[in-house]
Amino acid sequence: MSFLHDEIFEQPQVLRQLIETEENHVAEIAALVHKRRVPYVVIAARGSSDHAALYAKYLLGSLNHLPVALATPSLFTMYHSPPRLKDALVIGISQSGQSTDIVSVVSGAREQGALTLAITNDTGSPLAQAAEHVLPCHAGVEKSLAATKTYTAQLVAVALLATSLAEDKARLAELRAIPDAVEKTLTLSEVVQLAAERYRYMEQCVVLGRGYNYATAYEVSLKLKELTYVVAEPYSSADFVHGPIAIVERGFPVIVIVPHGAVYDEITALARSLQEEWRAELIVISDRDEALSLAKTPLWLPVSVDEWLSPMLCIIPGQLFAYHLTLVKGFDPDHPRGLRKVTITQ
Amino acid sequence: MSFLHDEIFEQPQVLRQLIETEENHVAEIAALVHKRRVPYVVIAARGSSDHAALYAKYLLGSLNHLPVALATPSLFTMYHSPPRLKDALVIGISQSGQSTDIVSVVSGAREQGALTLAITNDTGSPLAQAAEHVLPCHAGVEKSLAATKTYTAQLVAVALLATSLAEDKARLAELRAIPDAVEKTLTLSEVVQLAAERYRYMEQCVVLGRGYNYATAYEVSLKLKELTYVVAEPYSSADFVHGPIAIVERGFPVIVIVPHGAVYDEITALARSLQEEWRAELIVISDRDEALSLAKTPLWLPVSVDEWLSPMLCIIPGQLFAYHLTLVKGFDPDHPRGLRKVTITQ
Repeated sequence: MSFLHDEIFEQPQVLRQLIETEENHVAEIAALVHKRRVPYVVIAARGSSDHAALYAKYLLGSLNHLPVALATPSLFTMYHSPPRLKDALVIGISQSGQSTDIVSVVSGAREQGALTLAITNDTGSPLAQAAEHVLPCHAGVEKSLAATKTYTAQLVAVALLATSLAEDKARLAELRAIPDAVEKTLTLSEVVQLAAERYRYMEQCVVLGRGYNYATAYEVSLKLKELTYVVAEPYSSADFVHGPIAIVERGFPVIVIVPHGAVYDEITALARSLQEEWRAELIVISDRDEALSLAKTPLWLPVSVDEWLSPMLCIIPGQLFAYHLTLVKGFDPDHPRGLRKVTITQ
Repeated sequence: MSFLHDEIFEQPQVLRQLIETEENHVAEIAALVHKRRVPYVVIAARGSSDHAALYAKYLLGSLNHLPVALATPSLFTMYHSPPRLKDALVIGISQSGQSTDIVSVVSGAREQGALTLAITNDTGSPLAQAAEHVLPCHAGVEKSLAATKTYTAQLVAVALLATSLAEDKARLAELRAIPDAVEKTLTLSEVVQLAAERYRYMEQCVVLGRGYNYATAYEVSLKLKELTYVVAEPYSSADFVHGPIAIVERGFPVIVIVPHGAVYDEITALARSLQEEWRAELIVISDRDEALSLAKTPLWLPVSVDEWLSPMLCIIPGQLFAYHLTLVKGFDPDHPRGLRKVTITQ
């Protein structure tokens, strides 16, 4: 076994711990955000944390009607001419809390007078010190280089913030049920293990999602690149048809993230066209038979949740697929070539 | 010859026409933005236009200190729960002005009371009708499916807006010199034609840029995907080292956009590491010998401009490389498989 395997399976416990410990604390942070009448949010993040930021863009936009801008750290660290962020809520998301550029955005924004929040797994990190408020992920040490439990913890942290801001008790109750749903979804591991064999010689693929699961498409792609060295490219289904679809040829592998919800019909129609007209090979992650029936490799979600929570479940078969494909390809899941756990960028 | 070839070479004339015709009009729009004391900007765009939006994110951020959020159109069209944009400047960028989701963001924002602007090549389009103000690109009809002259026209439109907002006459003068600089850069065509032969069987590659040329990395990737079906993946050099660098193996082709400027040292250091340690094959677009010396295929920019204007020149060898590689691979530059000129997405 590997750290990666263990950390994937620790997720239910991590998420339970996070929700139990931080629920009240997040409500306090939400009260401060309300008090400041924050008109928009800026998030600075890299890698998997940036995918949690993408989720925040949709959730804070939809549930809290807050526009969210992803930060351009180089305007702080390289060009030394940052945007005015005084009125914004500025959030830094980083597992390690070490990345210099993310810290620079948060500390620069705080100097300007912005309300600042760090979402990090290390409460002693430079990022935690730079921000006025800290929301810890409670994921324990993550030893594997590829982030798994810290990613889902960041998603849950974002969801805690959004539901607290909305004072939406019904959604908070749905969120509390997520750790159990993740646990049930992990039972897919055996199915995924059998399915992974077929992709031993896959060298490239595309991963499609939209809306809340745009983040999932990015995160599945990154896991595949880091762990299996497959050139996996993420797309919103809407962006994909604006040009990149041209790369698809017969047998080209496309992973489609399509749980039920508002974007289901559109993505399913694209998946049908990819399968019937372009003759792509589809790997489908869904809770719906119709979408799954289009796949050569259907990955059936055993639990159905509302779409806003689905990224926490849809990523699980993606993590499992990347993990098992790593073993099938004969690589080391804990030590991908050329990567260090903490990546310092300016 | 092809429409694509002709349109690439029309760019100097298109950009001259745009600057001459719209300079005063943009100054009027800028005055309205000042009057409204707009605190932040939201931009809705897809495909190449979205890459012009990325450029705007850096330029408006750095020169005008305006935070820029890229819109999430599905919150308008699919989730029917859009963010509050009343105080923002909301810009829709679209060559055709037809894309339903981009139009929805702009018309939704206008209904909320936001100041709205369309940057489009078709002043009679739904997008032009939806926005309060229209900045036409003056590119003439673009017959090739792959956008070239409309992309650089959008970059220039964004630069006109940013310099007008800053009332920066020195930069405006630098911008006026760009059409001539583009013309000189087009003389690279013969060099690129010879260089393209080597990449006849290239199936995948990575394109790196950062800061202002993050947009260029995205646009070069899209041209390669649309025209040559190469799986080309764009990265900020900072994001690349956070995981995706693992896909690089000996001989893996990496296109590096690295003109002189604030991010030059960082990207050149990464390029050196990719060449010396990872044994990647580099195609370098630069005006500096040091960076070019790392390349198997150096593409030397014959004109040096300030970094904020460099995306308008750096894209030229990228367009030429995609065009010549299309011919080398035996594909049709005007009719990429499976694409239509106007892509309607919701």
